[in-house]
Amino acid sequence: MSLADVLAFLESEFPQMHHGGRTFHLEAVGPLSARMRMDHHERHLRPGGTISGPSMMALADLALYAAILAQIGPVGLAVTTNLSFNFLRRPGTTGLVAEARLLKLGRRLAVGEVLITPPASDDLVCHATGTYSIPPGSAVS
Amino acid sequence: MSLADVLAFLESEFPQMHHGGRTFHLEAVGPLSARMRMDHHERHLRPGGTISGPSMMALADLALYAAILAQIGPVGLAVTTNLSFNFLRRPGTTGLVAEARLLKLGRRLAVGEVLITPPASDDLVCHATGTYSIPPGSAVS
Amino acid sequence: MSLADVLAFLESEFPQMHHGGRTFHLEAVGPLSARMRMDHHERHLRPGGTISGPSMMALADLALYAAILAQIGPVGLAVTTNLSFNFLRRPGTTGLVAEARLLKLGRRLAVGEVLITPPASDDLVCHATGTYSIPPGSAVS
Amino acid sequence: MSLADVLAFLESEFPQMHHGGRTFHLEAVGPLSARMRMDHHERHLRPGGTISGPSMMALADLALYAAILAQIGPVGLAVTTNLSFNFLRRPGTTGLVAEARLLKLGRRLAVGEVLITPPASDDLVCHATGTYSIPPGSAVS
Repeated sequence: MSLADVLAFLESEFPQMHHGGRTFHLEAVGPLSARMRMDHHERHLRPGGTISGPSMMALADLALYAAILAQIGPVGLAVTTNLSFNFLRRPGTTGLVAEARLLKLGRRLAVGEVLITPPASDDLVCHATGTYSIPPGSAVS
Repeated sequence: MSLADVLAFLESEFPQMHHGGRTFHLEAVGPLSARMRMDHHERHLRPGGTISGPSMMALADLALYAAILAQIGPVGLAVTTNLSFNFLRRPGTTGLVAEARLLKLGRRLAVGEVLITPPASDDLVCHATGTYSIPPGSAVS
Repeated sequence: MSLADVLAFLESEFPQMHHGGRTFHLEAVGPLSARMRMDHHERHLRPGGTISGPSMMALADLALYAAILAQIGPVGLAVTTNLSFNFLRRPGTTGLVAEARLLKLGRRLAVGEVLITPPASDDLVCHATGTYSIPPGSAVS
Repeated sequence: MSLADVLAFLESEFPQMHHGGRTFHLEAVGPLSARMRMDHHERHLRPGGTISGPSMMALADLALYAAILAQIGPVGLAVTTNLSFNFLRRPGTTGLVAEARLLKLGRRLAVGEVLITPPASDDLVCHATGTYSIPPGSAVS
């Protein structure tokens, strides 16, 4: 699926990702990869002005989901089975960018990793890995 | 700290947990444990009416955080360093309850696990483990 | 499968688990559970006389594998897809016991957790979770 | 520490890594990185001739440990607190190479990831992340 196709699918199927304010933006999809941006927004904050863990977790999950969607298409929904996060630095008051990369795309399971940094920075704030169950009958392209 | 103390601290320091609607409720704290409830609410939903992964992740993180807070008190904020989730079943359209248990409470690190089920059910929908860095100088009670 | 059946299968299919000395002993299997013991042995040691992480990891993997085997039988081999470990305390110079419990046994995936303690002790030294892919056609009993 | 220094330290402090046959070889250390090779050997095998999970887990742990050692020196031993593995493909009958990279090296915690492939191949067979507790007083260089 193209970036436009994945965007249209997410808009139609995941309107909840925008609950409380439109802050998640899919910026790119590529072979086994996707890039998702999260705006700085009040609802993502923790005490001290830093970005909350759950907001970063949502960002990583969405980025991996988009990367899988771009590869296998909208036939059936991949289901998250495992997510693991290492929080490395406090990000401060900033938006964040998640770069997702699929390490494996099998017939039954997809596994990927995500690097989260501030925009235009190499300072890793979070590293995540995720596993997704692919529904039978999906066309792995 | 007592349940009332932890509740007052969370209200004062984490008002963001109620962004979009008050849905997280700390129900109990005990020795090395805490129970947190999440109401069924539109902002926690995914397509098909199931509860979103990020909402369950926020619930698990809050429950572990409350369990640590009840033990070490409000002197300094514990920092989440690792969270790992296994999503076991789709929960359907329901609230959820997280039972958090600390497996270790050391001077520098606390480690705990969380079992998430629907209320009054033993059907595990998510199992989580988390590691938190304890700031120097905290009074581990 | 009974304990005797699982033992016979492991002896026949996993002779490598005894490489360097017979130290792993399956003690019990039950509904969605198994208990595996590891003897104290030179090949499991780290500097200071403590038990090595990889030996505990092998113990946890074997215990979960035995729990799955007891449920689904020897038709096809379950494949480990994810293992995650929290090391909680140094165990000292002792054997160890792993209690494995399956949290989910689906048609495609099994997920379980393992608690590792010294024998006759409640002092957790390691907590593990694991996910296994179940080959198509297995008879989940 | 140089490669020669790390090698000498491992030989002196971790003779157990060679129990059952000398199969682990540290090939390189660099800024926040290390490469460890594991020979194909009977004691690393699983049914069907594939490499066992515990052998890959030992390899990943050693590679991360060496990367930390090269940075902070031999003053005090880093302690593994968390290891998480995704097993991606069966490696077949081959030696393996682990490339470890530190994502964070703080005063109290180091976090890294490891990519395991067959030699001279990009086919990922395992991805691992690990967290290590740094003892107080270590000279982070």
